[in-house]
Amino acid sequence: MIIVLRPDATEEQQDHIIKKLKGLGLQVHISKGTERTIFGAIGDEAILQSVPLEAIPGVEKVLPILKPYKLASRDFRKENTVIDVGGMQIGGNRIAVMAGPCAIENKTLLVEIAKEVKAAGANFLRGGAFKPRTSPYAFQGLEEEGLKYLAETRERVGLPVVTEVMDPRDIDMIVKYADIIQIGARNMQNFRLLKDVGLCKKPVLLKRGISATIKEWLMSAEYIMSGGNHQVILCERGIRTYETATRNTLDLSAIPVLKQMTHLPVVVDPSHAVGKWDLVAPMAKAAVAAGADGLIIEVHSNPEEALCDGEQSLKPKSFKQLMDELRPIAVAVGRTI
Amino acid sequence: MIIVLRPDATEEQQDHIIKKLKGLGLQVHISKGTERTIFGAIGDEAILQSVPLEAIPGVEKVLPILKPYKLASRDFRKENTVIDVGGMQIGGNRIAVMAGPCAIENKTLLVEIAKEVKAAGANFLRGGAFKPRTSPYAFQGLEEEGLKYLAETRERVGLPVVTEVMDPRDIDMIVKYADIIQIGARNMQNFRLLKDVGLCKKPVLLKRGISATIKEWLMSAEYIMSGGNHQVILCERGIRTYETATRNTLDLSAIPVLKQMTHLPVVVDPSHAVGKWDLVAPMAKAAVAAGADGLIIEVHSNPEEALCDGEQSLKPKSFKQLMDELRPIAVAVGRTI
Amino acid sequence: MIIVLRPDATEEQQDHIIKKLKGLGLQVHISKGTERTIFGAIGDEAILQSVPLEAIPGVEKVLPILKPYKLASRDFRKENTVIDVGGMQIGGNRIAVMAGPCAIENKTLLVEIAKEVKAAGANFLRGGAFKPRTSPYAFQGLEEEGLKYLAETRERVGLPVVTEVMDPRDIDMIVKYADIIQIGARNMQNFRLLKDVGLCKKPVLLKRGISATIKEWLMSAEYIMSGGNHQVILCERGIRTYETATRNTLDLSAIPVLKQMTHLPVVVDPSHAVGKWDLVAPMAKAAVAAGADGLIIEVHSNPEEALCDGEQSLKPKSFKQLMDELRPIAVAVGRTI
Amino acid sequence: MIIVLRPDATEEQQDHIIKKLKGLGLQVHISKGTERTIFGAIGDEAILQSVPLEAIPGVEKVLPILKPYKLASRDFRKENTVIDVGGMQIGGNRIAVMAGPCAIENKTLLVEIAKEVKAAGANFLRGGAFKPRTSPYAFQGLEEEGLKYLAETRERVGLPVVTEVMDPRDIDMIVKYADIIQIGARNMQNFRLLKDVGLCKKPVLLKRGISATIKEWLMSAEYIMSGGNHQVILCERGIRTYETATRNTLDLSAIPVLKQMTHLPVVVDPSHAVGKWDLVAPMAKAAVAAGADGLIIEVHSNPEEALCDGEQSLKPKSFKQLMDELRPIAVAVGRTI
Repeated sequence: MIIVLRPDATEEQQDHIIKKLKGLGLQVHISKGTERTIFGAIGDEAILQSVPLEAIPGVEKVLPILKPYKLASRDFRKENTVIDVGGMQIGGNRIAVMAGPCAIENKTLLVEIAKEVKAAGANFLRGGAFKPRTSPYAFQGLEEEGLKYLAETRERVGLPVVTEVMDPRDIDMIVKYADIIQIGARNMQNFRLLKDVGLCKKPVLLKRGISATIKEWLMSAEYIMSGGNHQVILCERGIRTYETATRNTLDLSAIPVLKQMTHLPVVVDPSHAVGKWDLVAPMAKAAVAAGADGLIIEVHSNPEEALCDGEQSLKPKSFKQLMDELRPIAVAVGRTI
Repeated sequence: MIIVLRPDATEEQQDHIIKKLKGLGLQVHISKGTERTIFGAIGDEAILQSVPLEAIPGVEKVLPILKPYKLASRDFRKENTVIDVGGMQIGGNRIAVMAGPCAIENKTLLVEIAKEVKAAGANFLRGGAFKPRTSPYAFQGLEEEGLKYLAETRERVGLPVVTEVMDPRDIDMIVKYADIIQIGARNMQNFRLLKDVGLCKKPVLLKRGISATIKEWLMSAEYIMSGGNHQVILCERGIRTYETATRNTLDLSAIPVLKQMTHLPVVVDPSHAVGKWDLVAPMAKAAVAAGADGLIIEVHSNPEEALCDGEQSLKPKSFKQLMDELRPIAVAVGRTI
Repeated sequence: MIIVLRPDATEEQQDHIIKKLKGLGLQVHISKGTERTIFGAIGDEAILQSVPLEAIPGVEKVLPILKPYKLASRDFRKENTVIDVGGMQIGGNRIAVMAGPCAIENKTLLVEIAKEVKAAGANFLRGGAFKPRTSPYAFQGLEEEGLKYLAETRERVGLPVVTEVMDPRDIDMIVKYADIIQIGARNMQNFRLLKDVGLCKKPVLLKRGISATIKEWLMSAEYIMSGGNHQVILCERGIRTYETATRNTLDLSAIPVLKQMTHLPVVVDPSHAVGKWDLVAPMAKAAVAAGADGLIIEVHSNPEEALCDGEQSLKPKSFKQLMDELRPIAVAVGRTI
Repeated sequence: MIIVLRPDATEEQQDHIIKKLKGLGLQVHISKGTERTIFGAIGDEAILQSVPLEAIPGVEKVLPILKPYKLASRDFRKENTVIDVGGMQIGGNRIAVMAGPCAIENKTLLVEIAKEVKAAGANFLRGGAFKPRTSPYAFQGLEEEGLKYLAETRERVGLPVVTEVMDPRDIDMIVKYADIIQIGARNMQNFRLLKDVGLCKKPVLLKRGISATIKEWLMSAEYIMSGGNHQVILCERGIRTYETATRNTLDLSAIPVLKQMTHLPVVVDPSHAVGKWDLVAPMAKAAVAAGADGLIIEVHSNPEEALCDGEQSLKPKSFKQLMDELRPIAVAVGRTI
């Protein structure tokens, strides 16, 4: 931690700061420059992370040196984390493709879509039973009934399933049915939920909050990991910017940034990012080219009748075409799909 | 709802859309302009809010006419909502001032701060027992012990109390101790939590999410109100922008915008918005000048030892000075404080 | 143009609006819904674009139907614009690669870099003689001397050149030396400069402003085109968001959005977007996968001694490797490079 | 400058960096912490500002200690800069109020508005002769004819005038007519224009770019000041965020931040920030309460016929009422108006 003093910091203030740092078991390195005096606090920086140094008179600013997350950090684990879900891997050479409807609507439709996406090459089925909707008057999901359809579809079609949890009270129930538990963008900083999924044994797909920095996102991964569950998959799904031509702005540069900062696998959701089905394919291709470990894509047999996010759903035929187009790109970046 | 067709929309596509709208019980008004054909759907627009019209071939864009919230809308209720908390009003002529520490740390300190802020003119005590912290390694709050201190302090000092709920499982407990339940910025779209506080009888202080639009914020208020609890207080606390000189950017223009859109009272939290104690006072004054119904301000006797957000806490002496400076501004806008 | 009236709009106000619209030569289509009355103004919407309808009492909001740009619009020209620069095409099947140093520093270095990038497969040389620098104390470019080096290098190496214009007074000079004139992000709304390059015969590479919407960007293209110069190349170079892990956030979804909205070619500058050389390659690949017509990439033989933007410059060896990696991706999307 | 090394930085890389820093005449302070080695470069930090240290192998990140601007800094000049314009002061105790139409439309109207705003208490007249318009098809201003009307109105009504310059070629002409030269938000980083107004003797009102950080804004002030013109007035006019309820988001916290960072006066433009006339008054009051040295407000006798920005213009009567409401707020913060 670097502490930059104000030019008018008194001797007394300086002594107070030094005493405080030493009292925390840190060594203090003093460097008097031409315009500012700087203190370097040497030792375990974590001690200082919760000390409001900027509240101390005489301090101009504080510059942290280390990252505030540990378990999620590439420093902590050099090699990539590969997560195994019933024989399918996420973070390995093969790109994971999770496809399916936004919301589970009924069993017949779910099975139909699952078969289609599997035939096209998807290796996971996505579908929501609990839906976070901006409006209290919108369809909120089939809840446990939907989870049952999901589990039945898995059996019939043979795809592991990903589904969202919104409430810590539902975790036990969801864990019974799902292979991967999803934390949605709006819950990325629902810290109670993070703690509780941190106690599960199931992999967690952690979506980036729509205005979360990459650092905050990794702190949320850290919450889950600090509970003992190290199977975290990060999912970029677009961030909120001033641009309104797309629903959100897909931040693909997060992929190479994350690959430097963390060992966790990174998946991209182009559907929610762009919000329009005819923009999904180019962004899915770009995600693979940028190094994503997986994709999560909304597919619906009849988008205009979908109960949720029909605008951004691909029809099975378009999804199949996309899969065909993705293959050579995956090969070009040394992967398979 | 206005539906703008693509210039190449076929007759067949147009017929399909018209049939669909009529099937939903709406009248269709057709207007063929020089460059675009437009359909106006007349009837209950709410029916269309969950229909993905943009998924239908031939549709270029959809322009909603009405607001997606009802109970929270100024159309629904013309006069201002005034919330009464043990004789103190929020939304009335007198500006409500909620002050206290970020986190409840111990009883002695809480009582001390409560006395100071009351003496300075505050009419509510704030303090967190459950703290949403970015880091899993930071102080997470005293939980029920903290709530007890809060309730005891209320008795001893005579100020109603505001405290945050983060988890639906804690609502019953918090309701026993608190006068106003706070939903933090990170939980503004924790829809399960919103639904559950919507079933409470206690007023809810709903903070704006750091990247929530005003419309989304009112939709979250609508969630609470649709459950039966109409006592919602909106709290602007800064939004996330690219500017890093302040923690967030306080959006004071939200106050007059909200006064047009809704009947609910609007409170401002300058402490979290700016993130630095020496910027709090000017923004508190600006909030009152802009028409805020209240302020929520962090005060701590010894900020540099605070367990949470010390950098942005005022000392009791500065808080007292601020209260003195706020009085003439309140008078200038026809209010008291 | 759709005009939504306030629920309390009086008869008199409505008559006033109708009269005003008719006075402008427009037909008025009146639609009385259950909650709002709506006027549709039929005729040339451009007439209304500069009329402040929202200033008229009784008007709640105004919803434009048509796009405010014409010449830049896909409606105006269905087929893609292909720009020919000395036999090299931008917007055709082959992806254009513009590479070179941020700033022209001296002739020897420029020739050296030009040879390297040409050998690696670049087909244009980039280099700035006039540099927009945040600090008045930073290197501002070699000006005309730099342009001369650029022209000499073109002759010796055989690559057409792209260089930036910052001031309308320099256009005549720059046109003598350059093959493509670049308008930088900070000047995207320097309307005088746009008008003046609109009178040139040289193609213009128009970078997106760091907080420009796609619509505003196309309006700036319209400025140039309305002057008679239809050879506009759009260049996405990252937008400003709250994320600080990269210099800006590269908005690759702008590519498919632009492909729907306009016929103009779209080029991507990953170097300025990410701001760090080791993030450039994945984003260059993603841009090609997303459908970009070209790339503009900073290359410097000795980045740590570069006078401008060394952090984001690739060394020639890394650039060569990137070109090799781009080829199969170009093929995968049906292009060559 | 603090240079944080990568954990894997080799001895050779470290030696290279040390040699480079010493070669620049700086002393190097080495601090080996438990997880990172840090170099402190002591001496004139300005030397390093244009050295791309992050391009050097082994460097993880670079943390600057000092601000990149000097003349604009509060460190450079402790007391507030007060700018005198024909006896009227900006930055002194009295709050400067600049009012008038967005664009100069004709002489009669300009004189009429000038009289009204003067009678209401404004002490400067604003009005644009050169208008930066998003659309090339919109009214672009009366140019020199408008400047003549402005100068004549000044004579007749007795108010100093503020008007915008968009092009360095117009500076000489504008300087003949105007008392204060305005640089608009879109030109905040038009560095050529900044340099040229830096050579003028007239005060410059420098609007903040819609996505400029406060630091970049001060760097633009530095451009002007480094040319010799120290009479710079900063004008906050709203920044671009994701919120669409207002045209931009007025960042009033910039006022106290600037008061700490710089000695230059700060003026606020609520009209452009909110974009709707009925939101102007609360934000003008908030600006004064937050410590603004002045306001710039659009006033038009007949907004619905205005050629530019009619939606956000106050009628003279509303402006007069606002002035009456501002007086007690000015008094409450120890100022006059």
